[in-house]
Parts: sequence; C-alpha cells; structure tokens
Amino acid sequence: MFIIGELINGMYANIGSAIKERNKKEIQNCALTQIACGADALDINCGPASGQPQVDMPWLVEAIQEVTDKPLCLDSSKPAVIEEGLKASRNKTIINSTTADAEKLEALIPLAKKYESKLIGITISSKGIPQNKDQRLELAAAIVDNCLKACFPVEDLYLDPIVLPVNVAQAQMRDILESIAEFKIISEPGPKTTLGLSNVSQGTHLRSLINRTFLTMAVAYGLDSAILDPKDRELIDTLITAELILDKNIYCDSYLEAYRKK
Amino acid sequence: MFIIGELINGMYANIGSAIKERNKKEIQNCALTQIACGADALDINCGPASGQPQVDMPWLVEAIQEVTDKPLCLDSSKPAVIEEGLKASRNKTIINSTTADAEKLEALIPLAKKYESKLIGITISSKGIPQNKDQRLELAAAIVDNCLKACFPVEDLYLDPIVLPVNVAQAQMRDILESIAEFKIISEPGPKTTLGLSNVSQGTHLRSLINRTFLTMAVAYGLDSAILDPKDRELIDTLITAELILDKNIYCDSYLEAYRKK
Repeated sequence: MFIIGELINGMYANIGSAIKERNKKEIQNCALTQIACGADALDINCGPASGQPQVDMPWLVEAIQEVTDKPLCLDSSKPAVIEEGLKASRNKTIINSTTADAEKLEALIPLAKKYESKLIGITISSKGIPQNKDQRLELAAAIVDNCLKACFPVEDLYLDPIVLPVNVAQAQMRDILESIAEFKIISEPGPKTTLGLSNVSQGTHLRSLINRTFLTMAVAYGLDSAILDPKDRELIDTLITAELILDKNIYCDSYLEAYRKK
Repeated sequence: MFIIGELINGMYANIGSAIKERNKKEIQNCALTQIACGADALDINCGPASGQPQVDMPWLVEAIQEVTDKPLCLDSSKPAVIEEGLKASRNKTIINSTTADAEKLEALIPLAKKYESKLIGITISSKGIPQNKDQRLELAAAIVDNCLKACFPVEDLYLDPIVLPVNVAQAQMRDILESIAEFKIISEPGPKTTLGLSNVSQGTHLRSLINRTFLTMAVAYGLDSAILDPKDRELIDTLITAELILDKNIYCDSYLEAYRKK
C-alpha cells in the first residue's frame, strides 16, 4: 500500500497558520512525523484560506524538500497552482487531481507528461458526483481513454472512486468498494487505485473505527494507495494486518514492528 | 451477521471443570454473558478431555436451555454425540459439523432433517485440508449436492471454507475469502456461509487485531455467520461497523449502542 499522508493541508489550523507566517519548521515537522509513521508520499494542499496558492504551493514544496525526498502529491483544483508546484519540485510528484472533464484532462495530462508526474483521476465530472458503480466506471473509462490517447502511461494513473461519507451515502459504499476492483481491469496494464479515506467518516462520531474498517475492505478489493492520516496508529496497524492477511508482507510474530522498521 | 458464541467449549479450563463438576451456574453464566455481548446462538463443545461426551452434551444442552432459548450449535466430530444433543434440545439447533465425507454426510443430513436442525458443512474430507480455492469449491459442491439429493433445504446449510492460521497458511487467506463469495452461488437458492474465526490467529501474538481484520474482509466477501468470541468488544465494534458500511444497519451517530440494544 502506497500511503499518502494527508496532514499538510491549509484547512488544518496549524498548517494554515504556518503557511501564512512562512513557518517552515512547522511544515517540515509535519512532513517528518508523517514519514516516521509510515507515509510513502505527502499530500500538499494550501487550503481554502490561501489567497495566493500559486505562491504558497511552491513555498510548501521547497520547505518540504529541504527535509525529505519522498514524493509530493500536489493537491489543488487549479491546474495553474499544480504547475507552480511541479516547477518547484525536485522530488517525484503526483498530481492530485484531474476529474473526467475534458478541460481538466487537457490541462493536467500534458503537465503530468511534461514533469514525469503520476496522476490521480477522480471519477467525478461537472455533471456531479456519480450515483452508482456504472457511472463511476464510465467516468473512469473516460479518464483512462484520455490517458491512452495522450500516450500517458496508464500504470502511472491512480483512479479514485470518490469516497462519500457513510452517514450521507450509506447505500453507495459497496459500489465504491466494487469500483476499486473494476477500475483495475479497465485496461492492460491497468490503472492503479487510490482514495481519500477520511471522507468516509466525515461528520461521524467514530471516525477512526469507520476509517480503518472501510480501509480494510478496500484493501480486500485491491486498493493500491490511500490518502490518509498516518498518525492514526490503529489505522496503520490495521492496514499492515490487512496486507499481511493478503500475503503482501511475510508473517513474523512481531510483524507490526518489522513492517514499520522496513 | 449471525454470531455464534464460541466460549462454551471444554477446552477452556473454566468450562472443562464446570462440565466435570456438573457446575450448571458456570455454564449458564457463560451463555448469558455471550448473549449480552451479542451472540445469536451458542456453540457447545464438550472438549477433548470429556470421557463421556454422549452424556456431557445433553447435560450442557439442558443446563443452557434453562436460561435461554437462543439456538444451540452442537459441536462434535461424533454424530452419536450430536444426536444426544439434538434429543435433549428444545431450542433451535445447528449441527456443527459435517465434512464432505460420505460417511459423515449420510449420518448427519438425515439427523438434521429429522430434528429440523440447520447444518454446518466444512469443506474438508478424509483426504485432508484443501490447498486452494478449487479444492474448496469441489468439496462445497459435494456437500450441497448431497443436501439436494436428500431434500435437505440448502438455505439451512452453512458452508465453512475452513480457516487456517495466518502464520502457517498465509498464501491461502485470499482463497479462503474468495471461497465465501463462490460458495454462495453454488445453487439457487444458495447455501449460507460461516467460519470458525479464531483459527485465523491461532499461535499468533496479536490475536484480536488479526481476528477483526480478517472478519472485516470476510464480511466484505459476503459472510453470513461466524463462530467467534463475542466478549471481544473491539471485534464486535468492528463487525457492527463493517455491516454499517455495507448498508446492513441504518447509520446513526450512536450506531454501536443502537445495534447492541437491538
């Protein structure tokens, strides 16, 4: 499982202030803590309060790559902001994200190619959020099709079925899980899959329990990557155990420690 | 999820002594505690030390049905012991279990019909434990076939893919999970599925974590029932959450309490 740490996001008070005050140390500590907890990559989002994301994004990239060479997941709805992040990046990058809309695909696939970045494609469009598995698959196929036409390597595409909160879209959870398995066989070689985990428990009272239970199921359906809070120790313990059960890590009595050391 | 409590088993010291000393109170307390924790039925196994299981089994049945009318899951490798339990039962019963061997099927299917009992069929035979999904399916189909020929209702059959410990059979875990989904489409109407959960963590150091992670995956694959320790609160919390995610319980903020009250 490729873990993308979600905590460098301006919507969190500490990160929002650190961006405003140009407090590099706070950002770097958050980066290093997430890596110590198991993050393979770091999501970077300037947050809704940033008045100048095209400036904040490269500042964040530069601050973080002073302390790590882990891949950076440049998270913005604005292609111009993502491009500023790409320009500043020495580390590997992941663009987060394109939708299935032509306008987004035409802007972001060429950027991903130019900067040799991976690309997250969310199965959503300007028509709204898909309401079932078929609509998700249709949007996924459109994204894959655009990648193939543009000669962007599909192995570098991560499709996200768009996770909705269980308290508002309970009837869609099984479809979301089954979409993970379906996306992977759209093409050969197939795209990878990812998801923004914390959405599933948005607004609920038992966030960590719901997050780790949903993630376990998603792993069973073949999920390759997730954007999540690596500081949630029970979540990471559960994730390591789920992958152990599916024979992705070798069993030893102290497998949690062994995996963390690795 | 139909939860069968596993704790009335002579292999546990307290139950072993209670059987020997004819200590009804201890057995009844164990029954009531499991029910309070969410058990829908109670497994009853005299344990390996019982020198007279044909006498101990009906004694256990009588002791338990003094305090509950929950279904009793009569657990023995000896059909004669199961029959003594069936004779003594006023409550609904589940026979645990037949294998795919003709000798067992010929003894236990008629008993299940005569006593209107449900029947657990484990996909194992005198040739040994299946080594892959195809072997499991072959044994499952043989059990279903025998039920159909004997006019035993397949809806009352629970197929168990036989869970092996993750520390010795890690490569089989995915096959075991996929078998759950496969068993359910063997016939129309299909058999139900169950499993002895604790086996998955036998001999490991993190039993509860492994049990609840495996169970979550099994629920995602369609598991109908499990024999487990209902006193493991984190296990039951996880199970309730897994079923919530799959839209089997209605969401409310206090869904754990709401489900437990139900």
